[in-house]
Amino acid sequence: MDQDAALERSMRRALELAAHGPSTGPNPRVGCVLLAANGEVLAEGWHRGAGTAHAEVDALGKLPGGAARGATAVVTLEPCNHTGRTGPCALALIDAGIARVVYAVSDPGRESSGGAERLRAHGIDVLGGFLEAEVSAFLADWLTAARLGRPFVTLKWASSLDGRAAAADGTSRWITGPQARLDVHRRRAAADAIIVGTGTALADDPALTARDAAGELLPSQPIPVVIGSRRIPADAALRSHPRPPLFFPTDDLTAVLANLHGRGIRHAFIEGGPRLASAFVAAGLVDEYLVYLAPTLLGGGRLALGEIGVSGIDEQRLLTIEHCGRLGEDLLVVARPR
Amino acid sequence: MDQDAALERSMRRALELAAHGPSTGPNPRVGCVLLAANGEVLAEGWHRGAGTAHAEVDALGKLPGGAARGATAVVTLEPCNHTGRTGPCALALIDAGIARVVYAVSDPGRESSGGAERLRAHGIDVLGGFLEAEVSAFLADWLTAARLGRPFVTLKWASSLDGRAAAADGTSRWITGPQARLDVHRRRAAADAIIVGTGTALADDPALTARDAAGELLPSQPIPVVIGSRRIPADAALRSHPRPPLFFPTDDLTAVLANLHGRGIRHAFIEGGPRLASAFVAAGLVDEYLVYLAPTLLGGGRLALGEIGVSGIDEQRLLTIEHCGRLGEDLLVVARPR
Repeated sequence: MDQDAALERSMRRALELAAHGPSTGPNPRVGCVLLAANGEVLAEGWHRGAGTAHAEVDALGKLPGGAARGATAVVTLEPCNHTGRTGPCALALIDAGIARVVYAVSDPGRESSGGAERLRAHGIDVLGGFLEAEVSAFLADWLTAARLGRPFVTLKWASSLDGRAAAADGTSRWITGPQARLDVHRRRAAADAIIVGTGTALADDPALTARDAAGELLPSQPIPVVIGSRRIPADAALRSHPRPPLFFPTDDLTAVLANLHGRGIRHAFIEGGPRLASAFVAAGLVDEYLVYLAPTLLGGGRLALGEIGVSGIDEQRLLTIEHCGRLGEDLLVVARPR
Repeated sequence: MDQDAALERSMRRALELAAHGPSTGPNPRVGCVLLAANGEVLAEGWHRGAGTAHAEVDALGKLPGGAARGATAVVTLEPCNHTGRTGPCALALIDAGIARVVYAVSDPGRESSGGAERLRAHGIDVLGGFLEAEVSAFLADWLTAARLGRPFVTLKWASSLDGRAAAADGTSRWITGPQARLDVHRRRAAADAIIVGTGTALADDPALTARDAAGELLPSQPIPVVIGSRRIPADAALRSHPRPPLFFPTDDLTAVLANLHGRGIRHAFIEGGPRLASAFVAAGLVDEYLVYLAPTLLGGGRLALGEIGVSGIDEQRLLTIEHCGRLGEDLLVVARPR
């Protein structure tokens, strides 16, 4: 009982440590706590992003040689079995003389999995699935990307309460208020890529940067991605983005996402316009919806979402609402496919 | 100080009593507390609807003759000065020897106002506007109807998150869940009339009754009102409504509302379809919006709201969101024109 409580406390702490890592980039956020046989915390570690030490190695590195012998490693993700830019964590734990490994979520990677097996083969006591639900929820986007071999896709749109993105003549600027816009920028900064269609790129000439309330660039910037066959002029604002934009003159969205995944992009943020948004919905490629509803009515034909391939009610795209709250005068609804 | 506290307590109690009255019908819900000079409560009363005693008379009737002499009457609405089916309350208070009248909201009625003046002319100490904001909020719908000379208009629609009322082929049944539908029926029962266009009457053949979860009729039923020129067949469900339906073969919505007001209807509930809803919005005749949002996407052209006369963003119909909450899987947004 007492040991279980200590493990639970340590796993929660490991999750806290994991959250120190960057939300962007190809690697998951992982935390690790090393416990002595008497339950004392020996060291803590977390992963700071691709190319840096994994959480286990980060924690081990804080101890003098031999100090981890007989210890328990509590880690949010199954230790990897993969030699990439860093060596496999399973090996580092074996070399350090760790006696027991407790982890929450199994590594879904094709190349990196098998760590638990390797540890067990070296006589280490391994417990997997500890607080799995909690840690899975934290890693949901990354796990989805790993499972599907494409980025986790967030689709965002802003509309009036009657579902319009703009008035009949196309005017729409500032349909939502400053708090909603700031929320969008914060979420852009947490994504690896921001995707628009050429129609929106030409019509709105967006910068596709993530900015703060003062208009200053946030530290993390998503890679701008433009899908479609129309030419974007040399002086388009998105060409001045701090990260070089990617252009995909295609309508094969699956191919675009596979390409982005190959570039280490795990979370893509789709900003529109309506045609691209509808195409992603129709293709069943959306994992999360962010719908910003402005308290206004517009009528007319400028819809936030167009044809999505639903002809009868039996084909409707059912969602589950995860969150609904106010942002200033506006509402934000966060939903996922059911 | 102490007397003010006693008055405040009594006005809050009068408001509680007022809420015992019916929410439907032409008359406002009013409560009254009679206080002795020492602050003791002598009697309480409230109005039970058109044709029954007003709150002040209801309270006075509970005391033996002469017992109210020198008392203070605390009443939510200015005592009326009007002889309708009952005599003027101002006169009843004068006859009973009341020394002081404290009320919250002035009577906006053309025929019934002037009560405070008449009381003062008889040497009674009158204080108006006491806790006015609180009582005004309680009487908001009735006060709007009195001010505008037409019913307070609630427009309800149910749509997908992308603003559609039905799938492309017209199928829509049960777009929202049971909790949302129950909420609609509860609100129907609190209205005096329920309005649909002939298009909806013909397409859906709705009963337009207010029912409980078991499908049983609720005690209070709104009068069914059908607007439009198309003929409704003799076997239409709404013709079996417990209250005889009214038919208005016109597109003059202002005239329809004036007619309904003349019949004592103070709160009308518009249920659709999209064409009638859009016409009410375009005419600026909506006082309250109830938007039930189902967690689904439909796409296509079956919009909950159509043309509302907005061509540019400067003409948008700005709203204020009063409430947003979940009803089962659905969302309910309550908004008012800004």
